[in-house]
Amino acid sequence: MRAMIIGAAGMLGAKLSTQIAQGAVPGITDLVLVDRIAPAPVPGLPCQCLAADLGAAGAAAELAALAPDLVFHLAAVVSGQAEAEFDTGYAVNLDASRALFEALRALETRPRVVFASSLAVYGPPFPDVVPEDFVLRPASSYGTQKAMVELLLADYSRKGFLRGTSLRLPTVSVRPGAPNAAASGFLSGILREPLAGQAANCPVPDVTRVWIASPDVTVAGLAHAAALDWDRIAPHPVLNLRGISVTVGEMLDALEQQAGPDARALVSRNPDPAIARIVQSWPEAFVTDTAAALDFPVNPDFPAILREYIDQYA
Amino acid sequence: MRAMIIGAAGMLGAKLSTQIAQGAVPGITDLVLVDRIAPAPVPGLPCQCLAADLGAAGAAAELAALAPDLVFHLAAVVSGQAEAEFDTGYAVNLDASRALFEALRALETRPRVVFASSLAVYGPPFPDVVPEDFVLRPASSYGTQKAMVELLLADYSRKGFLRGTSLRLPTVSVRPGAPNAAASGFLSGILREPLAGQAANCPVPDVTRVWIASPDVTVAGLAHAAALDWDRIAPHPVLNLRGISVTVGEMLDALEQQAGPDARALVSRNPDPAIARIVQSWPEAFVTDTAAALDFPVNPDFPAILREYIDQYA
Repeated sequence: MRAMIIGAAGMLGAKLSTQIAQGAVPGITDLVLVDRIAPAPVPGLPCQCLAADLGAAGAAAELAALAPDLVFHLAAVVSGQAEAEFDTGYAVNLDASRALFEALRALETRPRVVFASSLAVYGPPFPDVVPEDFVLRPASSYGTQKAMVELLLADYSRKGFLRGTSLRLPTVSVRPGAPNAAASGFLSGILREPLAGQAANCPVPDVTRVWIASPDVTVAGLAHAAALDWDRIAPHPVLNLRGISVTVGEMLDALEQQAGPDARALVSRNPDPAIARIVQSWPEAFVTDTAAALDFPVNPDFPAILREYIDQYA
Repeated sequence: MRAMIIGAAGMLGAKLSTQIAQGAVPGITDLVLVDRIAPAPVPGLPCQCLAADLGAAGAAAELAALAPDLVFHLAAVVSGQAEAEFDTGYAVNLDASRALFEALRALETRPRVVFASSLAVYGPPFPDVVPEDFVLRPASSYGTQKAMVELLLADYSRKGFLRGTSLRLPTVSVRPGAPNAAASGFLSGILREPLAGQAANCPVPDVTRVWIASPDVTVAGLAHAAALDWDRIAPHPVLNLRGISVTVGEMLDALEQQAGPDARALVSRNPDPAIARIVQSWPEAFVTDTAAALDFPVNPDFPAILREYIDQYA
């Protein structure tokens, strides 16, 4: 069976490629890795590595012509860009996804599709713990586009054109690599930078509570959805992936425990009200009973998340 | 101010045209009535009556060029056709709506838009009374398309491109005109046909409970949304219109009270399990506190709904 990963050059896409090549989804015998810039091949399985812009005319059909049995669709314009560039956001996040589903439908092979959605489909006001069937009321164009694609994929699946699943990912921390401009960027930076002996700023108070998962466990969740028997996951066309609810103070305590007080001392505490307002508008926790019942993976605690990062990068 | 009604030749569109021409939305000074076949003009205001297919290339831009200040968007492929003709449903119910919103956005005048959505955005399993923020889990392509357009219109409004409101309509009864093939058709037929001295069949038991509103009150709800101060309705981009929850037995009791036992005797009771299964899968009642707080109209009871029909048609 052939698996295709669209968005394979991103941090999650690259990790997913590696996990699949190492057997995370039984039965996969070769990989097609796709991104705007051709991704690097991964060891373990034959890889075709393609540069393609899913939004370009004909691109979806060209990818579908490779007859994948399983497609991970991770390609997206991120939240900030989708908000700043309205038309680009809809073109990439909605239209290109729809073009992909249409091209896969035309195969008439009912391929499995795993779509990386977002908790941004929800909007305030939030209860302390957001239930699984909380109303869709996105507060951003990005969240609107993700919600529309979830609905579309569920309908394509209901009609028997595809076998699709949308997974809403927690905030991923600790992300490797360079700092980014996302409001959530500090949730990786306050750990990654001190572990590299560099200063970082934490713009929110210790009590700020966030919903996170590690990169490896997030990617393992995507692979798990594809490996599950279709009969088990079909009744749940949209799932919130499992995460853990931790405070920023607990994250910094784990840093001190695993890397010492000098590492923690590299974290300055200059409040940034703009970032604090954004982050504090996010839900602190989600019910994920369905994902738990389906045996999706979860990090046991934040020290384990930090250890995953240290083992691989520090 | 110019109001445009797209879908003005339909039963609700024609009634809405008449209500607007009679002053239901203060400040409207002329009407543009649009449908695939040019609607008839209505007395009371200057009318342009246009034949246009909103899904045709350039049609949305041509309509927007008429610079409406208020647009009622009622045009749609109905549920059965959207399910049987997947591509047509998406083209008309999703793509044409999006083309309309884009063309209106380009005006840069932030026109008011009232979109006729559907309770089909919800899917089973249902609680006895469906809350206002019940999860979007449509069980049909029609419901999926309506949910996607609701999300799109809310995002266009949030971005300041339009001032849009989506209204989810109850089942409309008593509909005038010929019987139709909809599963809900008997909810009008068991009243309309006997009132005309004709036989009708009721395919479900007396205890079957349904959520309905009369044509006039449904249309008054659309007009009310347009007449409300934008500041009041803007926080509610999607609303369930008010309805009443009645049993089929109560509907037939009202028929007997207002038209006599001979009228009721024209209603045969041959069960149709297929129709019963569909109708019994629909929710029996909805919470509509928001619409009530915003002073949307509601029928007091089923006898009043039946009297509305008799006064106009029987």
